[in-house]
Amino acid sequence: MYSPLLEQLIDTLKCLPGVGPKTAQRMAFHLLQRDKPGGLRLADSIVKAIENIGYCEKCRTLSERAICTFCGNPSRDQAQMCIVESPADMLAVEHATAYKGIYFVLQGSLSPLDGIGPEDIGMDLFEQRLAENIIKDIILATSPTIEGETTAQYIRQIAHNFAIPISRIAHGIPMGGELEYVDSSTLSRAFAARQSI
Amino acid sequence: MYSPLLEQLIDTLKCLPGVGPKTAQRMAFHLLQRDKPGGLRLADSIVKAIENIGYCEKCRTLSERAICTFCGNPSRDQAQMCIVESPADMLAVEHATAYKGIYFVLQGSLSPLDGIGPEDIGMDLFEQRLAENIIKDIILATSPTIEGETTAQYIRQIAHNFAIPISRIAHGIPMGGELEYVDSSTLSRAFAARQSI
Repeated sequence: MYSPLLEQLIDTLKCLPGVGPKTAQRMAFHLLQRDKPGGLRLADSIVKAIENIGYCEKCRTLSERAICTFCGNPSRDQAQMCIVESPADMLAVEHATAYKGIYFVLQGSLSPLDGIGPEDIGMDLFEQRLAENIIKDIILATSPTIEGETTAQYIRQIAHNFAIPISRIAHGIPMGGELEYVDSSTLSRAFAARQSI
Repeated sequence: MYSPLLEQLIDTLKCLPGVGPKTAQRMAFHLLQRDKPGGLRLADSIVKAIENIGYCEKCRTLSERAICTFCGNPSRDQAQMCIVESPADMLAVEHATAYKGIYFVLQGSLSPLDGIGPEDIGMDLFEQRLAENIIKDIILATSPTIEGETTAQYIRQIAHNFAIPISRIAHGIPMGGELEYVDSSTLSRAFAARQSI
């Protein structure tokens, strides 16, 4: 490459997920040739976000304040807690449902083989929250993966210890999905979890 | 969105080509949760590149020095000039061929309807370069689009005025392309440009 700074820009753009050498090159040329102001704004907001965004002290979601806008919002039901694996999952629930309670973000899921234990997913904070005796209802929205299931079992046990009702979002055939093409584990689970109508 | 800084980061990431709201969100979460050092390096290299990279005074490619490494490299043939539309095209030629001359980057192509005239693609600088009487051979590598063809005609005329030999890269069936599926304008051009073997 003929320009070290350009090479460096292309190289650092590759740290973004889904960006390979070709895309990084296209992005670099775009920023330099067509959108310098946008590039400067981008650099500025990356630095600001990285330096200021931490984790909410109550729910562990990404937040630039000590208490996020959900946990600090009195119009949300502070007695209902939805447990998700990541802030992205939290946004997905927020966009798709009419849920008006608060969240608890695990920032991962239990995975003993990878050395991810209960503390890493904030179980100490979670128990503290339950001990406050404010939470009256827990909705578990972890992914139906091996790690997600393990995490769900672990959290279920804690909730039972505190005698707090806990439910888990339904898993089954996705809307619009054709039975014929649904994988067998999903189908068998949907079959077992059938409900009377 | 619950965090203004996060929202701003996602919004500014959308200035990158090919990045929509979903991808921008994924990139933002990735930077904040998994690669803060990479994010800071990225922000730094964006600012450095935008502030320092300008255009080479001799060939108009992107360069952080007044004279780019091609034009300033004595081991490259300074008498042979390849004309391309963009720095990306220049890199493509550089990677694909054994070309060892210098380049001239138009940074666009003639398009009177869009108000892009000869000065916008550096034709004044180009004529100066030819007047120096160093360039002995010109290879035209503009795209086979309407604008690229117009540009090629314009440059051909200037080269003829200076009595400098000019050639154009071949257009025809791409390697590995099947005749049956090649578009008709490419095929007719390839037919007309047949060479004796």
